[in-house]
Order: sequence, then structure tokens, then C-alpha cells
Amino acid sequence: MKSIPLLLMGCGGVGRQLLHHIIDTRSLHAKQGLLLRVVGVSDSQTLVVAPDVFTTGLNDNYLAELCRLKSSGSSLTAMNKFGECQIFKNFEVTKKIVDVAALLGRSTGLVLIDCSASSETVGLLNRAVDLGCCIVLANKKPLTSKIEDYENFVLNLRQIRCESTVGAGLPVITSLIRIIASGDTVHRVVGSLSGTLGYVMSELEDGKPFSQVVRAAKSLDYTEPDPRDDLGGMDVARKGLILARLLGLKINMDDIKVDSLYPDEMGPCLMTIEEFMDKGLPLIDKDIAERVQKSSSEGNVLRYVCTIEGSRCQVGLQELPKNSPLGRLRGSDNLVEIYSRCYKKLPLVIQGAGAGNDTTAAGVLADVIDLQDRFP
Amino acid sequence: MKSIPLLLMGCGGVGRQLLHHIIDTRSLHAKQGLLLRVVGVSDSQTLVVAPDVFTTGLNDNYLAELCRLKSSGSSLTAMNKFGECQIFKNFEVTKKIVDVAALLGRSTGLVLIDCSASSETVGLLNRAVDLGCCIVLANKKPLTSKIEDYENFVLNLRQIRCESTVGAGLPVITSLIRIIASGDTVHRVVGSLSGTLGYVMSELEDGKPFSQVVRAAKSLDYTEPDPRDDLGGMDVARKGLILARLLGLKINMDDIKVDSLYPDEMGPCLMTIEEFMDKGLPLIDKDIAERVQKSSSEGNVLRYVCTIEGSRCQVGLQELPKNSPLGRLRGSDNLVEIYSRCYKKLPLVIQGAGAGNDTTAAGVLADVIDLQDRFP
Repeated sequence: MKSIPLLLMGCGGVGRQLLHHIIDTRSLHAKQGLLLRVVGVSDSQTLVVAPDVFTTGLNDNYLAELCRLKSSGSSLTAMNKFGECQIFKNFEVTKKIVDVAALLGRSTGLVLIDCSASSETVGLLNRAVDLGCCIVLANKKPLTSKIEDYENFVLNLRQIRCESTVGAGLPVITSLIRIIASGDTVHRVVGSLSGTLGYVMSELEDGKPFSQVVRAAKSLDYTEPDPRDDLGGMDVARKGLILARLLGLKINMDDIKVDSLYPDEMGPCLMTIEEFMDKGLPLIDKDIAERVQKSSSEGNVLRYVCTIEGSRCQVGLQELPKNSPLGRLRGSDNLVEIYSRCYKKLPLVIQGAGAGNDTTAAGVLADVIDLQDRFP
Repeated sequence: MKSIPLLLMGCGGVGRQLLHHIIDTRSLHAKQGLLLRVVGVSDSQTLVVAPDVFTTGLNDNYLAELCRLKSSGSSLTAMNKFGECQIFKNFEVTKKIVDVAALLGRSTGLVLIDCSASSETVGLLNRAVDLGCCIVLANKKPLTSKIEDYENFVLNLRQIRCESTVGAGLPVITSLIRIIASGDTVHRVVGSLSGTLGYVMSELEDGKPFSQVVRAAKSLDYTEPDPRDDLGGMDVARKGLILARLLGLKINMDDIKVDSLYPDEMGPCLMTIEEFMDKGLPLIDKDIAERVQKSSSEGNVLRYVCTIEGSRCQVGLQELPKNSPLGRLRGSDNLVEIYSRCYKKLPLVIQGAGAGNDTTAAGVLADVIDLQDRFP
């Protein structure tokens, strides 16, 4: 039996779902000779660690209890009630994770899993890579920091997996990495990478006013609490940056032209969410309706996409042929078109649900299993 | 620099394209610290091997010369003119490949690449796996032999890659393996896995008669020399069997219900190609036109697909909603819909060119690179 030690950072929705997946797949992985041994779990302030990281893991009852505790909104500090473990707090957390990485990195190996949303894990991840650990990311931030840090981080790209940072579990990054490895030259990537904006564009296509569509999306819980977090396009830009860098572009977030679907004067500093929803949105309706109308009259449809071509990455509304994969897209699925030497006229297309804790955590687990050959 | 020794069996179109890709990607792979060292190449009768398989490889000029020779229809026996090599013939070929596999398998490692179309490589591949070698397949036959042989062969599945056996370079198998590894449960896979039949169905949808469409496809070189090799569905069934077995179905080719697009009495033993094209085909027109008409009247379209669901795999015409990924498919692209716990109502969709030497060889090369962590 090959034992793969894991340390999970972040036990929000994705992290907890991952722990459930690990518990649920024990027998499946045992059949393949694999044992996933969770040696530690941290949230933003606390870390719980198995008594002896070389030989033990936090057992499944303990992990299930931990998930229950976290989903009730409590802190990890109460976890010593539920079984033998070491508990570390605040500034001790990072120090202890580095200790574990140093102990296991070059001996048994360790997968450090980042399911947090923090921009502060990157230093720790860098050290862990240097110590021989593998990294699996659902957190986009370590891949969207400034280019010098990124290049330093990915020097040992084979130790890193990050499928769930773009399109949740959809095999977008896996496929791009295969294409690049085969020497196929990627000319262009165009993707609808936000389920929310995919839904919005598809409703607009049916002739509904923008304000009505956004309100409906919010009431269906398709948007962030402040819908401007979706409409601004920054989340799409972060995913675009990750793909662009994989393709070799040495760019930063600042280099991406991002077209927001609302004007600056309706920004969060100038309008409350309620003002934006009630008074702001209707002021945008006419402009967007005209753009929808114009593209339709030319046989096109309007999509909110990320486009990577040549040395440029841009995010915003684009007119696309009605009769193309992105043009035919309806609803909240993500869809990525990859044009390359092998997929020249007609792209390689990957489409499916691009959000949700279940599929995101499934992508993380597939990444972990994909690393198994790096373990003794 | 990590050196990965390769031995290529089969130097038809895909094998030769692979050698070209290997030569063309040398600098790309060197940047990642990889050296692909081609220690031997065989066709059906001859094997050429580098002088010392531990330290040398056949050099790029030699490999380019080999490609030229083979594309001109010559045998590999003439290769000693072009550089230092050992040449083996007929019954010596397999014996020598086993020797190389034994020498390298447990020391430096070896990737044995099967780009042949032979059903006789499976014994050799089995021995190579036992000797610690990795296997990359473009050849479908080793995965479609009887289930006992298959199960024996895939006992060490991590040593085997086979992306190019289904949909050429499309990441269908990679994606399925990720989904399975993550513990996601696959309920149903439906795929249009023949570019030829995809083209035919899409032309039928436009109201053209079957006979006319098949004749056009033949004159465009979209079909095999005998179009019945496509229309019979056996190639689709072989791909379906590979996917079904990956999903855990313990079935053989015989267990797959295959609906041919021509009746038995028009088979190759009873009609020449010309008779079939001139007299046979028009007799099928009415029946197929009725089926196209019927499905259209119900808001559906007719597709020739492979369906894997529960414990069954079947191949043939199926009515699918016009407004589904397969329903919207046009032309010769392959398309696979995967329904699972994570992709329940709306499937994970992978679409793109599913044939061609360039993309098939690119898939093989991506598989080789994917094995790098198994090499010291």
C-alpha cells in the first residue's frame, strides 16, 4: 500500500467537501493500492495535526467531526475533544506547517493542499516546494501574484497541480498542459469562465433587460452577495491570467484589459448594493440591449469571455458567431475553446459545470491522485 | 537532465508523425529537463536498435531518414546505410524487444510505444509491463482482446497510457480517469466517436439521401477505402469497449450490440465495393430517410453514437434532443458527453477533431511526457 500524506489548508466549503470525498473514496483507492493519510488540517487561525505525522493520520471519525464543527461556524480550537491531535494557533500555524513539510518533504513526501482563498499562502507554498513537497491548489491567489513570484513558484511545475483553479473540476488545465507537452502550438483560447455571466448572457440573448436578468440571478443565488463582484469581471480575469501564464505569457493582472459590465461611478465605494440593484442597473439596460441587438443583427451573439491570443489576454463582451461552440452555449455551463495547430479551424472544446464545492473538490482529489507516482 | 528511453513499434503514419514530433519538441522538452531517447523502432518485420541502449539513442538525422524511407514504402532493412545500428528481422524482432525491455525496464525505465494496428503485440506488452516498462498505446487492439487478457494487462494501469485510442488526441480517457479517481460516479457516457459517421449524420439532417452522402464522404476521402468499414460501426464499438472497460464493465466485443448502417446481405462477402456503392446504398435510402424524418418530427436528431450506461454498451443510431451537445454537433468532430454525480443534468462535454496522424501522435507524445515521474 502506497501512503500519501496530505495537509489541507482551508476548511471552507471546498475543503470540507474534499475531506468527505477522501473518506468516501477510501475503498476505491485501497483497491488501487493507495492510502490518503490526512496528517493535518488548518483554517485561517488554527492547525490540527496528527500525533505522529510519519505514521498516523487524523482518523475518519475525527475528520467528519471536524467538518461538522466547521460547517456550524466554530473554530478548530475545539477539536482536541474529538481525538488525539496537536493544536497550533495563530503565528505557530505557518511555522508548524513548514516543520511538517520539512519532516515529510524529502522522506515520505507530502501533498500540501490549498483550499483557502488567502493571498498569504504563497510564501509557505514556495518553501514547501523547495522542501520537496507537492502542492495542489483550489486557491487561485498563489498563481495570480506578481509574475516574478509566479515564475519562482512554478520552477518545479511537476510538483504542482491546479486544475480546480479554472472551471472547477473541468479538465481545462490538464488538457492545456497535455497540448503544450505534445509540442502543439496554441494560437488562441477563448472561454466563458463564469457560470453567472454565462447565465446572464444567455438570458440577454432571449431579449430580457439586463437589470431584470441580474436581479433574477441574484435571487437564484447565482451571484455573489454583491453582484458587482461577478459583473466586474475580475474573477474571470484571474482565471484568464492562470491560463495565459500556463501558455507562457509573462503578464500580470494589470496587463489584462478587463471590461466591467457596470461603469466606475456605480462601484462599491460610491453605491450600496441596494442602490446599485434598484437605481444603477436600470441605467445600464439600454446600452446593453443595443449591443445585444447589434450583434444579433449580424448573426452573432454576445458573450462575456476571456480571450488569450498572441501576447494578449483580455476579458469582456465579445461578439461570437451564433454557430460556434461559445455561440451555442446556453445557461451557466463554462466552456473553453482551444485553437492550436491540431485544432485549427474547429477548436478543442471543453464544456460543463464550472463551479460548486462538489466538482471543485473532485478536481482537487483527482490532482492528488495524479501525483501518486511522485511518492515512494 | 532526465532521460526517457523509448522504443516505438509501428512506423505507419502515426508512428512517423510521432518521430517528427519528438524531433521538433527537443528544445521544448530540454527546457523542462527531459530528453526523449529513441532506442529502437520496428515495423512488422524489422527492428532497428541503437548500438548501446543504455547510453545512446538513434539520432535525429537517422530518425528523419527512417521516416523518409518508410513513407516511400521501403522496409527498415535498408537502415544500416544511414548510421550505426543493430538490425533484427522476423522472429528475432520480438525476442530483441523483450531483451531491451528486460535490460532497461527495472534500471533506466523504458516506454514501449505501440503505434501498430496489430493484435499480436499484446503478449509482448504484457511481458514488458511485468519487466517494469511503461506502455503508451495508439493501437486499440491490446485493449479490446478478451476480458481475461485485458484484466491481466491493466493490473498495473499506472504504467499504461492510451489516450490516442479514443478520439485521437482529445482528452477523453484522461478526463474519465480523473473523474473515476475523484470518486465521482459516472452514470452514462454517450459519444459520437467516428468523424465519418458524424459527417454522415449531419448531412442526413440537412435532408440529403444516405447514398449521396456516403458517396460524397468517400470521394472526400472521409471514409475507409471500403465505406462499410465505417458504416458497420465496429470501429466505434472498439472505442466504446475501451471506455466501457475503463468504467469497470467486464465485457467483450461480443457483448456490445452494434447496429450496422447496412444490412448483412450487403456485406463485403456478398457485394464488391462498387456494387455496394452503386446498387446497395440506394436501397437503404428510404429506410434511413424515414428515421431521420421521424426523429426530426419529434424535435430530435439522429446520431450514430456509442452509449455506455449501467452494465451495457451499445452502438448505433439514436434519437437525441436537438438542443443537446450531441444534437447540436455538426460535421466531423468527435463529441463525448459524460454524465456523473458532478455532471448530472448537464454533462461534461469534450469535443474536437478525433482523427488524423498529427493529433493522434500528439496524444501519444503527451502520454509519454505524462509518464515522466516514473523515470529516475
